[in-house]
Amino acid sequence: MTQPMIGHRGQETKALLKSIKPKLQGIFGTKEDVLIITGSGTAGLETAVVNTVNPGDEVLVLVTGAFGDRFVKICDAYDIKVHRLEATWGEAACPEEVKTYLLANKKIKVVFTTYCETSTGVLNPVSQLANVVHENSDALVVVDGVSCVGGVETKMDEWGIDVLVTGSQKAFMLPAGLTFVAASEKAWKVMEENKQSRFYLNLIKYRDRLADDSTPFTPALSLLFGLEQVLNLFEEEGLENVFARHTLMMNMTRAAMKALDIPLLTSDESASPTVTAVKPSDFDPEMLRKVLKKEFGLSIAGGQQHLKGQIFRIGHMGYCSPADVLQIIGILEIGIVKVGKMINLGEGVKAAQEIYLQQEALV
Amino acid sequence: MTQPMIGHRGQETKALLKSIKPKLQGIFGTKEDVLIITGSGTAGLETAVVNTVNPGDEVLVLVTGAFGDRFVKICDAYDIKVHRLEATWGEAACPEEVKTYLLANKKIKVVFTTYCETSTGVLNPVSQLANVVHENSDALVVVDGVSCVGGVETKMDEWGIDVLVTGSQKAFMLPAGLTFVAASEKAWKVMEENKQSRFYLNLIKYRDRLADDSTPFTPALSLLFGLEQVLNLFEEEGLENVFARHTLMMNMTRAAMKALDIPLLTSDESASPTVTAVKPSDFDPEMLRKVLKKEFGLSIAGGQQHLKGQIFRIGHMGYCSPADVLQIIGILEIGIVKVGKMINLGEGVKAAQEIYLQQEALV
Repeated sequence: MTQPMIGHRGQETKALLKSIKPKLQGIFGTKEDVLIITGSGTAGLETAVVNTVNPGDEVLVLVTGAFGDRFVKICDAYDIKVHRLEATWGEAACPEEVKTYLLANKKIKVVFTTYCETSTGVLNPVSQLANVVHENSDALVVVDGVSCVGGVETKMDEWGIDVLVTGSQKAFMLPAGLTFVAASEKAWKVMEENKQSRFYLNLIKYRDRLADDSTPFTPALSLLFGLEQVLNLFEEEGLENVFARHTLMMNMTRAAMKALDIPLLTSDESASPTVTAVKPSDFDPEMLRKVLKKEFGLSIAGGQQHLKGQIFRIGHMGYCSPADVLQIIGILEIGIVKVGKMINLGEGVKAAQEIYLQQEALV
Repeated sequence: MTQPMIGHRGQETKALLKSIKPKLQGIFGTKEDVLIITGSGTAGLETAVVNTVNPGDEVLVLVTGAFGDRFVKICDAYDIKVHRLEATWGEAACPEEVKTYLLANKKIKVVFTTYCETSTGVLNPVSQLANVVHENSDALVVVDGVSCVGGVETKMDEWGIDVLVTGSQKAFMLPAGLTFVAASEKAWKVMEENKQSRFYLNLIKYRDRLADDSTPFTPALSLLFGLEQVLNLFEEEGLENVFARHTLMMNMTRAAMKALDIPLLTSDESASPTVTAVKPSDFDPEMLRKVLKKEFGLSIAGGQQHLKGQIFRIGHMGYCSPADVLQIIGILEIGIVKVGKMINLGEGVKAAQEIYLQQEALV
């Protein structure tokens, strides 16, 4: 990322974008263009909203945490009529409920959902959700994949996702600053007819320029340099291995928490391979976060909105290995003792090690 | 910019934003907050539009080139009633004409102008323009400073600029990816009442979070690390010296072109210290660009829109010195000979050297 700048309208940038294009498609599981916008993940979510929702449309947002809620907030800013179908935070969205809701509300034009809900560590069943939406309505399916695409299997085309959004700073292993958006043929038709005012986030401009291996506005070039490199890393490791590594890291983390008798927020069935939320019953997660930061420089996330102060979250995605997970659990155990919970030191690590060895035996 | 990532909601990021804040204010010449948005310069321009213009408002855009025209395009995307006052490309906007126009069109709520119009190398007299706007209307003055703020004197508050926008990749010496926006008290009042739908580009969110040394959405952290460093560079050199260096580079470049008898697009009075546009009468600028790129790896810009194929542009801003200008002119002279124009080799360089020595004698 420290390469000297190049002309963003020159041949070098064209070559860079041309090399990036097919690799991004592989990670999204799509034959459609994956468009690159300079901005945070929220800019990508807003791109999905302003390009697919016409003024006056009704939409359904499946809220399973803070990022589902963000879709609601964006829609509210645009005076869109939002139907909010909320799950208990920590649980996944239920396809059957979505079906019932859609059958009772025939005007819904777009359904928004979150693949990995970072705020709770839930991986929503987007394939099944897309399926019920398409079987029971003509609505588009828009998926926020910010905190997992690149770390978990994603088959945008096969699963029937109409718009998929992700960001550079999560499983993509880059600093923040880029957001990626791809759209299905059906979504492009809606976008072409869409009357919502938009300029910087007008996805059609990005599609039209990418056809010429270019971008409509000056891109964050240093991040594009980095992107090419991380796409090479994905290729070298192999996507299947990347996904298996994330599943392994999740299993190790969860086994450790179970061995230490610290409750997990999510069930095994709805747990995300990229982030694990933990809801301790006998110590203060905020105190634990402070101890870990101060003693080891380790940042673990807290809860958001009504989960604030109730949970802590361990990210295990992107440039992160099973060895890192062992280190983090080792540190965590010390932190847990320091905040006053009695545990048998090393039991969490041992459980994680056992998972690692079992997994290896399977391969 | 290659520092490891830090938590964007943690204390380190707060400290970073706190250190950046006053330094940005100095460069903008304002006591107001300078807000940092992850996006290209166009995202900053759109921020200015969607925050200040209410649906149904009439606005005046002073078009002196492609970037004035971009304000028109953004306003058009939002169905805003645009009055377009266009100067001949290569000339500056005329305050007297603006006065006449405003007196004849009392409904105008916002006047948009460009400080340095990169596409022509014109530096518009924004201080005088802001003055006539305020003397003859209640309109807000919005200034695109993308290709010069940081390289030329800017006194946002003193000059009466209500919204000033710039980007990271020009005189700010960073890769693209950040845009900076500051607003006057009068502009904030308009923004608070504004009914235009907006979310990611809602400047109020940025102001409210900066009060807590934070950002509403994940920022492009690696660019913030770089920003802190370039702000230190500005401080070490001293802003007055930075501006004098840019003026010197402009004078050297213009003297060289005059000595080589190659017409400049802009007059001395309206020339920008950051970029010089040249309009050769007896050779093809596109051929020159190709030769320079191929033989020396030197990228110089061409013309945009109706100036395409008619001009070339030499950027001399940001991380760039008088010594770089001498090198570029030396290379240019060779390129000019190669595309078939007869010149006395070294005459451009000599003229630039003389300007350099004169300037030194003055100090």
